[in-house]
Amino acid sequence: MTVRFPSNIDIKKGFQVQLYESREDIRKAKIVRGRSINLALSHRGREALKHIGMEEKIVSKGIPMKARMIHSLSGKRSPIPYGKKDQYILSVDRANLNKELLTGREKYSTTAITCISFQVILPGGEEVQVNADFVVGCDGAFSVVRRQFLRQSRFNYSQTYIPHGYMELTMPPLDGQFALAPNFLHIWPRNTFMMIALPNLDKTFTCTLFMPFDEFDKITTGEQVLDLFQTYFPDAVPLIGADALKRDYFRLPAQAMVSVKCSPYHIGDSCVLMGDAAHAMVPFYGQGMNAGFEDCLVFDELMDQLNDDFGAVLPEFSRVRVPDAQAIVDLAMYNYIEMRAHVNSRWFRFRKHLDNFLHFLMPTTMIPLYTMVTFTRTRYHEALKRWHWQNKVGIRLHFHYNIIAPIGHVLMKQLYYK
Amino acid sequence: MTVRFPSNIDIKKGFQVQLYESREDIRKAKIVRGRSINLALSHRGREALKHIGMEEKIVSKGIPMKARMIHSLSGKRSPIPYGKKDQYILSVDRANLNKELLTGREKYSTTAITCISFQVILPGGEEVQVNADFVVGCDGAFSVVRRQFLRQSRFNYSQTYIPHGYMELTMPPLDGQFALAPNFLHIWPRNTFMMIALPNLDKTFTCTLFMPFDEFDKITTGEQVLDLFQTYFPDAVPLIGADALKRDYFRLPAQAMVSVKCSPYHIGDSCVLMGDAAHAMVPFYGQGMNAGFEDCLVFDELMDQLNDDFGAVLPEFSRVRVPDAQAIVDLAMYNYIEMRAHVNSRWFRFRKHLDNFLHFLMPTTMIPLYTMVTFTRTRYHEALKRWHWQNKVGIRLHFHYNIIAPIGHVLMKQLYYK
Repeated sequence: MTVRFPSNIDIKKGFQVQLYESREDIRKAKIVRGRSINLALSHRGREALKHIGMEEKIVSKGIPMKARMIHSLSGKRSPIPYGKKDQYILSVDRANLNKELLTGREKYSTTAITCISFQVILPGGEEVQVNADFVVGCDGAFSVVRRQFLRQSRFNYSQTYIPHGYMELTMPPLDGQFALAPNFLHIWPRNTFMMIALPNLDKTFTCTLFMPFDEFDKITTGEQVLDLFQTYFPDAVPLIGADALKRDYFRLPAQAMVSVKCSPYHIGDSCVLMGDAAHAMVPFYGQGMNAGFEDCLVFDELMDQLNDDFGAVLPEFSRVRVPDAQAIVDLAMYNYIEMRAHVNSRWFRFRKHLDNFLHFLMPTTMIPLYTMVTFTRTRYHEALKRWHWQNKVGIRLHFHYNIIAPIGHVLMKQLYYK
Repeated sequence: MTVRFPSNIDIKKGFQVQLYESREDIRKAKIVRGRSINLALSHRGREALKHIGMEEKIVSKGIPMKARMIHSLSGKRSPIPYGKKDQYILSVDRANLNKELLTGREKYSTTAITCISFQVILPGGEEVQVNADFVVGCDGAFSVVRRQFLRQSRFNYSQTYIPHGYMELTMPPLDGQFALAPNFLHIWPRNTFMMIALPNLDKTFTCTLFMPFDEFDKITTGEQVLDLFQTYFPDAVPLIGADALKRDYFRLPAQAMVSVKCSPYHIGDSCVLMGDAAHAMVPFYGQGMNAGFEDCLVFDELMDQLNDDFGAVLPEFSRVRVPDAQAIVDLAMYNYIEMRAHVNSRWFRFRKHLDNFLHFLMPTTMIPLYTMVTFTRTRYHEALKRWHWQNKVGIRLHFHYNIIAPIGHVLMKQLYYK
């Protein structure tokens, strides 16, 4: 299954780049197993794509999601906007994105950023010894390149698995149309359990069930699957279909989710980690791909600033990028709780509306954390710091708004969301 | 340098045990480089040694340390007792301890605990494939056995290096006697820097300098070494000797210190990690060896309780031992700050005396954390939890004692310490 992509490409900055990839060429492969189908693309990822002239190609195949749509147990649906009216995140198809990037890479192979960032070492048994002046390890959460870092002295590393696993199920179109409103990220928050659904171009939704492995293990029959869904996600049962549920649940085992932090990202002037290899995160902030793409942008910016001197660029990349990546890894973990549990509470929903409203009133002073992370390139660790500061200020406003909450809530909705 | 110790020993519980060790037999080796010379032995370690009938052999070669002796910049020395008058920790020689255990192992090879806990896989290039029903990885902070765990799904792991390194220097005897009072652990706390000194049987002290690597890197000449010591540890300069300082400082580079947490400690019913392989810690609580020895004791207790059924013992060992080890790893990291900085403050010293005094008044209610950790087998995580509770209660007493502090301080000293 080993594909070695065309080697010795001369690229813009004058480097010869070889790309190693252990998976089959996705443009030729039939099935891609065990990886999530959808990815959430937002500002940081788009900026990186724009930099290599590929933003429109990807965005045109994405489906805008302008709000979360919360499904209560009783079937009530409440939207919580992601930001302002014109702000949205995009549901993009992983397979299509990979295909476009591989094809784009051939077309735009004169641009450093695509090529450097895709260099990968073959994992596992099919290891290949490669002599290179410089290695970029973008080989994912289970990075083989990173294993070499672990042998270096004073490399800080942590990998943390959460007790939840995930499983994907498909919700087919209904009478040729999307079975749910398409421009939303649908969420069924049930405290310990959670399901989400993201729209696809073919008018299906990919539903992802998040559940503790303990619970996954308990379910061994189709009837138990149906029970689970009828108890916790009753409105989804007719849309996915009882038979499909009973069948598809057992197609693949639940997948684990890991959070990885490490430091530094480089060894000397010869090796650097990027993307999930440097900072795998749980998927609950929709920033995994965006953070990885932004790595390339940050790296490219440093290359320009420091005259392509790897000896200067690499330590600076670690110095700048480690605190940012660790901030988003932590935020994703925080959202792991928030999305399942807090999102259920009226207070949480009120806070989200309040945050958006304060932002509307004071657009440069009070910026919601989600907005900074998703719709700007504010450095992640600065967004987090600023959020803590805003929360302090917010507490002073809290008393005021808590008292006028019932009126305020209605008022805000009318004033702000058209 | 590979020694394979006598194999196929029949031991008490009926297991055949093979021991693998990559280092030369310490009883024959000339120099052991790059590992600390002294170890602090306290209650937990002693209980494990007692269990295999070796306590007296080791304790008789140890030097009791009944208090910390704080050296101020001006040369003032203030003792802070570790516990009650009759409580002390022991400074033991690593080389001698290893020798005794190896010899003891041959003599007491009918006891399961020594043999199981010493089984080691050869690290690095000299890897040996061994077929075994059961592997115990006690192969230290850079465990090769643990590397296999990293390939398993859902293994949580972290390794954290602290910015400090350490370097050992010898303080020779003065006129045939100890150059400092022998029954103390001497500490020169200087906030970012710290030096400690532990007594040896040959009337020398092993001085250990802890300093950020950045600072170690700055010092390149003997004069700079002397400058450093005359600025921060002036009373130690004549005792170590200016010439020895200038020479010995450059013998070995500063050594790194790593903190390791992981979970679980076992794979199936066939492999378990113990000691530093499971929970390497920074050396500032003097519990590294004690926690490792206690692992054996806990494992042996579970073997008895669960009828030597590895399938039951291993998950239980992880369940019981992970939270305890993580608590002591955290406490050691906390002491990394406390020993350098807090120990300087009058408030800290007052708190230590107050803790001991309250323990004297209410021996079963108010037990100092250090006492629980060092002089009891209270589970580490329970000691930590209890400490938090005592601190809450303590805050209520705080106001009272803070007001009568000047009187109280003198009073306590007179009442309590002889």
